[in-house]
Amino acid sequence: MGGAMTGKSSKTSIAVVGGTGYTGLTLLSILLKHPQVTIEHIISEQYAGQALSKVYPAFQGILDLVCEGLDLLNSSDLRRLEQVDLVFFATPNGLAHKVAPRLIEAGVGVIDLSADYRFGDLAVYEQWYGIKRKDKEDISANKNAIYGLVEFKRERIKTAAKKSKNVLIGNPGCYPTASALALTPLLEFSAKQKGNSLNCDFKSIIVDAKSGISGAGRKAEVDNLFSELNESISPYKLANQHRHTPELEMFLSEQLDHKMELSFSPHLIPMTRGMLVTCYVNIENIRNIDEKFIRKIYEDRYKDETFVELLPPGVYPKTKWVTGTNRALLQVNYDERLHRVIITCVIDNLIKGASGQAVQNMNLIFGFPEDMGLNLSAQVP
Amino acid sequence: MGGAMTGKSSKTSIAVVGGTGYTGLTLLSILLKHPQVTIEHIISEQYAGQALSKVYPAFQGILDLVCEGLDLLNSSDLRRLEQVDLVFFATPNGLAHKVAPRLIEAGVGVIDLSADYRFGDLAVYEQWYGIKRKDKEDISANKNAIYGLVEFKRERIKTAAKKSKNVLIGNPGCYPTASALALTPLLEFSAKQKGNSLNCDFKSIIVDAKSGISGAGRKAEVDNLFSELNESISPYKLANQHRHTPELEMFLSEQLDHKMELSFSPHLIPMTRGMLVTCYVNIENIRNIDEKFIRKIYEDRYKDETFVELLPPGVYPKTKWVTGTNRALLQVNYDERLHRVIITCVIDNLIKGASGQAVQNMNLIFGFPEDMGLNLSAQVP
Amino acid sequence: MGGAMTGKSSKTSIAVVGGTGYTGLTLLSILLKHPQVTIEHIISEQYAGQALSKVYPAFQGILDLVCEGLDLLNSSDLRRLEQVDLVFFATPNGLAHKVAPRLIEAGVGVIDLSADYRFGDLAVYEQWYGIKRKDKEDISANKNAIYGLVEFKRERIKTAAKKSKNVLIGNPGCYPTASALALTPLLEFSAKQKGNSLNCDFKSIIVDAKSGISGAGRKAEVDNLFSELNESISPYKLANQHRHTPELEMFLSEQLDHKMELSFSPHLIPMTRGMLVTCYVNIENIRNIDEKFIRKIYEDRYKDETFVELLPPGVYPKTKWVTGTNRALLQVNYDERLHRVIITCVIDNLIKGASGQAVQNMNLIFGFPEDMGLNLSAQVP
Amino acid sequence: MGGAMTGKSSKTSIAVVGGTGYTGLTLLSILLKHPQVTIEHIISEQYAGQALSKVYPAFQGILDLVCEGLDLLNSSDLRRLEQVDLVFFATPNGLAHKVAPRLIEAGVGVIDLSADYRFGDLAVYEQWYGIKRKDKEDISANKNAIYGLVEFKRERIKTAAKKSKNVLIGNPGCYPTASALALTPLLEFSAKQKGNSLNCDFKSIIVDAKSGISGAGRKAEVDNLFSELNESISPYKLANQHRHTPELEMFLSEQLDHKMELSFSPHLIPMTRGMLVTCYVNIENIRNIDEKFIRKIYEDRYKDETFVELLPPGVYPKTKWVTGTNRALLQVNYDERLHRVIITCVIDNLIKGASGQAVQNMNLIFGFPEDMGLNLSAQVP
Repeated sequence: MGGAMTGKSSKTSIAVVGGTGYTGLTLLSILLKHPQVTIEHIISEQYAGQALSKVYPAFQGILDLVCEGLDLLNSSDLRRLEQVDLVFFATPNGLAHKVAPRLIEAGVGVIDLSADYRFGDLAVYEQWYGIKRKDKEDISANKNAIYGLVEFKRERIKTAAKKSKNVLIGNPGCYPTASALALTPLLEFSAKQKGNSLNCDFKSIIVDAKSGISGAGRKAEVDNLFSELNESISPYKLANQHRHTPELEMFLSEQLDHKMELSFSPHLIPMTRGMLVTCYVNIENIRNIDEKFIRKIYEDRYKDETFVELLPPGVYPKTKWVTGTNRALLQVNYDERLHRVIITCVIDNLIKGASGQAVQNMNLIFGFPEDMGLNLSAQVP
Repeated sequence: MGGAMTGKSSKTSIAVVGGTGYTGLTLLSILLKHPQVTIEHIISEQYAGQALSKVYPAFQGILDLVCEGLDLLNSSDLRRLEQVDLVFFATPNGLAHKVAPRLIEAGVGVIDLSADYRFGDLAVYEQWYGIKRKDKEDISANKNAIYGLVEFKRERIKTAAKKSKNVLIGNPGCYPTASALALTPLLEFSAKQKGNSLNCDFKSIIVDAKSGISGAGRKAEVDNLFSELNESISPYKLANQHRHTPELEMFLSEQLDHKMELSFSPHLIPMTRGMLVTCYVNIENIRNIDEKFIRKIYEDRYKDETFVELLPPGVYPKTKWVTGTNRALLQVNYDERLHRVIITCVIDNLIKGASGQAVQNMNLIFGFPEDMGLNLSAQVP
Repeated sequence: MGGAMTGKSSKTSIAVVGGTGYTGLTLLSILLKHPQVTIEHIISEQYAGQALSKVYPAFQGILDLVCEGLDLLNSSDLRRLEQVDLVFFATPNGLAHKVAPRLIEAGVGVIDLSADYRFGDLAVYEQWYGIKRKDKEDISANKNAIYGLVEFKRERIKTAAKKSKNVLIGNPGCYPTASALALTPLLEFSAKQKGNSLNCDFKSIIVDAKSGISGAGRKAEVDNLFSELNESISPYKLANQHRHTPELEMFLSEQLDHKMELSFSPHLIPMTRGMLVTCYVNIENIRNIDEKFIRKIYEDRYKDETFVELLPPGVYPKTKWVTGTNRALLQVNYDERLHRVIITCVIDNLIKGASGQAVQNMNLIFGFPEDMGLNLSAQVP
Repeated sequence: MGGAMTGKSSKTSIAVVGGTGYTGLTLLSILLKHPQVTIEHIISEQYAGQALSKVYPAFQGILDLVCEGLDLLNSSDLRRLEQVDLVFFATPNGLAHKVAPRLIEAGVGVIDLSADYRFGDLAVYEQWYGIKRKDKEDISANKNAIYGLVEFKRERIKTAAKKSKNVLIGNPGCYPTASALALTPLLEFSAKQKGNSLNCDFKSIIVDAKSGISGAGRKAEVDNLFSELNESISPYKLANQHRHTPELEMFLSEQLDHKMELSFSPHLIPMTRGMLVTCYVNIENIRNIDEKFIRKIYEDRYKDETFVELLPPGVYPKTKWVTGTNRALLQVNYDERLHRVIITCVIDNLIKGASGQAVQNMNLIFGFPEDMGLNLSAQVP
């Protein structure tokens, strides 16, 4: 903030809290090349005083910033964060909500990649995350927080940012991002069109999701070891046990103005990056419905979106086509026999599913082109 | 057949037609250690005259049999096959049915790992495989063919084998095997119990299946290259396009005496071996139904099965736990909120999903213990 | 070339011949974001008339150019190529040399990613590639061709480009690039310092090289299948059988002015991208030599290089740290007991080992900053 | 031991200490199917009281033994171990040597898969492992311990076992096993033939080794995570820093009666199982030496070995061909230009490199056929 005299100071200044996990690191590597931002602080208790390139030698000669320790509950320490324009939290759940209200009050924007500000209804958060939220400023901040699924919240974010840059974004989880991109156009069409030509059975929705291992983060646990995961797949937390179930349901319920409940089934796949969701929705009124009809809903909905692309008929999405990018690729199939739509969607769980989307949100808040710094290529092969 | 004078001749003599694909090779490597069989012939046009260990140097010093060419449409050539007790076909679809009727007539048993004898209704086969079946002996043979999903066809196979060893087995596909093991107990319980306490919605069934790459065989195609598949997942043939859909539906329809239609969604996973199916079934009458109730159905059904194991509550199956074995591991979850059962099942696609099951069928026909030669360990890690 | 009236025409115009193999595709995806070039033609006989995004759907919505067929031996066809500023050949060996001389004559620059122009001594090329080179223009062009290992040929390329942009670059192979970056500083120091303090045993050199699978290209062969390569490693073409042996020897011999012969041992690793070379060199005069001494040679040599980085002591290079980038990371170890230097170097075989280096060469020829378009991040994790 | 009245008691009784690491587990899964042994105890402090199938659900329904805790330093506890015929230690280095002397004294055989009894010269052990060995019984036991590389120590083990079954085996490390199998025939030929026709340069030996990740064990460390290792290779502990260097040198020095020093360079490969060593040896007297000559040395040396196989000329070993087995596959190449022999050898690091070899040693001690329980097939593909 402050003086706009030098070239440097005209850039947006950024702090990343929790910069050494996979999400934080991915965020840094994107921000590093963003032409309109300056990374002022990388906060990491674990690596305080060490250069990031020492923790991740891949950044040797590229990102030589030093991690800073910072007592987030210490007022005088926090003042350093209050000096920047925007703070990203790439921290474990339960931390951001202790600090964000104060930053917002100080006029700083906050994009929280943890779950703390994703739930309009804090009771749901408390139940699923086992963390109590009693602080008044926090409750009030949470009320104003926006769920940062840009493709569906763009106008709300822009409007908020017009007043002031101290917007608070609850950046979506990876699974809900892919699932919402896949499901929302069809469900909205069903819910909101007058004299509707298509009715979905809202109780029939199943999301069978497949994720690369990096989603589990950089935790040193036996379950995350190479030799345990390689050459193997498995489901986990089936039947309403994964925290991304209520997150997705809350987004869809709000979006459709209808209480949504669905099956969400995550699976672990032996690859580092990438996520695929296979979504099933039954159609009730089946006359005049065919695959073309449903494709058109998606084409119309996404034709102006930079990061979302419907694949041509017959081309199934591969996660590799989007890893390293902020893109989502979709395909739509309609089973005429069973009146069931199958929508498949791939994203990079760490980019569109986390850090890329966070930068997309930042771009919106500060009025940069939405794809600034996000023009990333997939590695093929 | 014939003289039982020598030690060797007292063993069951075997021919494997198509021994150099992944399925044929897996079959050979099991048969090689089976104490009651002798491999008399490995038929391979492509590698005629070469030692199998030249094609697969992993078998150097282990399996030194030489592949033989054989004109399957030449009567005098076929006589060599008529001398053995059992012929396995591990050939492309459309070949076995040209030869099997004659072998059966000659008193030889036939286990066909291709799709030729899996369909009681040949019209379905013709439609999905694009192959006409007009030969009378073939049509008659097909009528007597048994779908070799041992856990559900054991008695029928035994009964047939009591009369004569020239049984004709249509050995199941990998996807239908895993799916049928997962679905059948629940669906049968729903269909067949009197005054039933549980009713499944037969129209709600979805099988979301994930397979390792070896299922695609050893075809030199760009789509099967390492660099195209590694670090990536994708769906394929969604919405009633995969040939294993009608196969599974036919098995279930026959088993339940009810025309079954379901969604089958295959996905490719970047690992060589292993298959997981995640199966969804809605329950209609939900009173008094809980996870325990449904577990008990599976426990009762599989308690005497050597190769099928229900995992303890909370333990999700991993494909690695079964690769290299003839086993299936299952888990059952019940979503009380949505009244939906989720059954997950893992198998090795090349063993329980193909060659191991074929040997299990052979053991049944010849009265060997069902697990003979199939006492295989999974590699862990 | 020609008219500089429009904004577009002020950019360097490019054609890529063979744009649909892995190398060509990687090249296109870099050029696509290069601010100073325009891709005019993608030549591909196989996919003529198809959009590149149809061949590689990852490029859907990103690269919508259509591949053109072009009879490279047809004069009137060739005129299209003569209209651009620079032609890249990402074609199989033996093709570029039939066309390049004519393009050079027409004033067009040529960067050949195949082996055709890597060998000053055409007899060596003919012996190893089994292709005769009798054409006079070709022989003359070959004489002027520059081996495009930028870090060691920069001045020569710049000087040539000062006269005219129709420079002919033989772009180095992946293995020789990594090996030369690892070996040359030490060997040059040994060869060229007066009153030398360090003498290498030039006959002791061994390069034990490990490559990801993408180096084999996009050929539909059984040996390149996922199920054949995954979870396995193997050596191949040991003991002077791989074509990169003479290429590396020719570069080093020229660089050191000393006939060099060495062992080069390639291995295939079950990963798509990345290459590691482990290089062994014995030291003869061992007094006063320690690891620090040898590190300093590399530090001095590479301190001004954008794309080459010596890692801190104790940090071993991982291929993942460079995949997706044009960088080389090195480490140097000295075994005091055996007087043996071990230099390890990692690159991305398709970028620094092929297409990135080609763009680096292009930047040099046209006077762009050497890292323009090459400021690429590694995906971590 | 004791009573031989029942069928069961006539089997050799076994205890495995440390049965829940990767090596211990692999050992158990082999012993489980060995027709001549009974597993009496699985000792694991970490999992005491739990069924092994709870720790490794892959063994659900297969291996239902319960792990026992046991205070190895408590005399009365130890008596349980003294009742069995043989104790395997699959424990971290530094534990077995505290217990083994007492077991040996009690007449029990000991096969130690840790490094404790691999070093005839305890000073070397102490220096590399940082563990002091002052106990007299231990020093005396160590003197009698045999380095269990069966192919080279068979007679010594047999002779010892003739006197008494309380033989103490230091079971070799994985890298030394593969390296010794590759190097010893050539070096012995060079060292021991009279009027020798072939002289190796003993100072030129380099072993460039590549290992799958399972060699790192089941430790929950960031370095062992899937996302850190997948799609990447790296060297580690180069230049005389890996503990297997002195182990290999000690074996070779003893075998050749000549102090051997060599370069050993380990690398981590993104696969779970398998190991490849690429070994380089220079030849000094080069007249009349060709590849055939050197092949013959290996053919002669290994023609009677069950588990070692020289591949035909031109066939390079792949680790996949041996994973899951106790076999070693070798290839020999001779570079006539540089007078350098390159021997490549693949093994399964957890079987021939650890647990399979341990069972091979057990078979020798108890007079069972050497391949009993070790007739294992590689999974292909």
